[in-house]
Amino acid sequence: MSEITELTKKLIAFRDARDWKKFHNPKDLAVALSIESNELLEAFLWKHPEEASQEKIKEELADVFAYALLLANECGLDVTEIVVAKIEANNIKYPIEKVRGSAKKYYEI
Amino acid sequence: MSEITELTKKLIAFRDARDWKKFHNPKDLAVALSIESNELLEAFLWKHPEEASQEKIKEELADVFAYALLLANECGLDVTEIVVAKIEANNIKYPIEKVRGSAKKYYEI
Amino acid sequence: MSEITELTKKLIAFRDARDWKKFHNPKDLAVALSIESNELLEAFLWKHPEEASQEKIKEELADVFAYALLLANECGLDVTEIVVAKIEANNIKYPIEKVRGSAKKYYEI
Amino acid sequence: MSEITELTKKLIAFRDARDWKKFHNPKDLAVALSIESNELLEAFLWKHPEEASQEKIKEELADVFAYALLLANECGLDVTEIVVAKIEANNIKYPIEKVRGSAKKYYEI
Repeated sequence: MSEITELTKKLIAFRDARDWKKFHNPKDLAVALSIESNELLEAFLWKHPEEASQEKIKEELADVFAYALLLANECGLDVTEIVVAKIEANNIKYPIEKVRGSAKKYYEI
Repeated sequence: MSEITELTKKLIAFRDARDWKKFHNPKDLAVALSIESNELLEAFLWKHPEEASQEKIKEELADVFAYALLLANECGLDVTEIVVAKIEANNIKYPIEKVRGSAKKYYEI
Repeated sequence: MSEITELTKKLIAFRDARDWKKFHNPKDLAVALSIESNELLEAFLWKHPEEASQEKIKEELADVFAYALLLANECGLDVTEIVVAKIEANNIKYPIEKVRGSAKKYYEI
Repeated sequence: MSEITELTKKLIAFRDARDWKKFHNPKDLAVALSIESNELLEAFLWKHPEEASQEKIKEELADVFAYALLLANECGLDVTEIVVAKIEANNIKYPIEKVRGSAKKYYEI
């Protein structure tokens, strides 16, 4: 079994043991993901990037992955597949020779 | 090589070909993750969970994973390790017999 | 003095008494605003809209306004002016006869 | 009529002319507020605070205020009242002599 499938199974086992599936509709999972991303962001607030607590980053990034994996599962999406597809699309959207070294959005190129 | 390591390598190759590493400090990666989580959330705005565009979910969730993987890499964190550690911690924080069927936060139990 | 100017003055007095101006660059204020919006959003997580704690909404919405007002001040923006300008722009972007009763985005009309 | 009441009335008139009240439950308004906060945050992504587009800040901050005002109205909250109450609570939570010049959270003092 793949690493991502295995992680997802563990998350589902944790959830189902608590009968929490009923709360996990895709909309609330997306809300939870935004909340956790912002708890992660809080590690950096008023700080230089290197001053953030590594412990807080670890804790909150784990929550981000947990909800992202549960949402992917709920929507029947294969993580590797969608990320690889996105990289391929971005390879076309952001041609190396045009964006090298610049942070412009593709519609500004 | 593990699935997650392989995905991360692809993301880094995409980034380095464009010389974008200089933008990818952990703080801005966390900002990008929050922004992408909210583009994902937009798929659900003013809608019932099942009305969201599956295409938009796929696109934005891929971006969420991309920045989460890049941030984990930048901070030297192993995704499987931190998620498994979090599940174990939550197993203690949310004892099955106390939280079954309830969405209360651990400090409300 | 206008209501908004007076509120802003109170927020600045609170901040300056603590010598916190040095942290309040526009980027970190925008990060703080996103974090507070998500603490507000947490009041609604896993819940129907009417189940949210009114107390939590009140607390977090106050923080949202505080950072939004401080950011407007930092950027020299007049709140009434920018909101009225936005309503006027949206009156053209979303013509009543085309969008009445529909939640479509302007580019989907 | 106060400035904030007047702004809120204009936002409600815009909404009601389009029959959008039905979408504006407090949960979706909070979701919209988080999304707009993150569109604002995008003005600062990969940038130093002073490099952000003033035009984008103005546009997105106006949207933040619009949804914050509509949510306050939906929940029957008086903006001035809740912000002043929060400042007073924070005056106790963050005593000047203890926090002066430091960005620590109150539970770290």
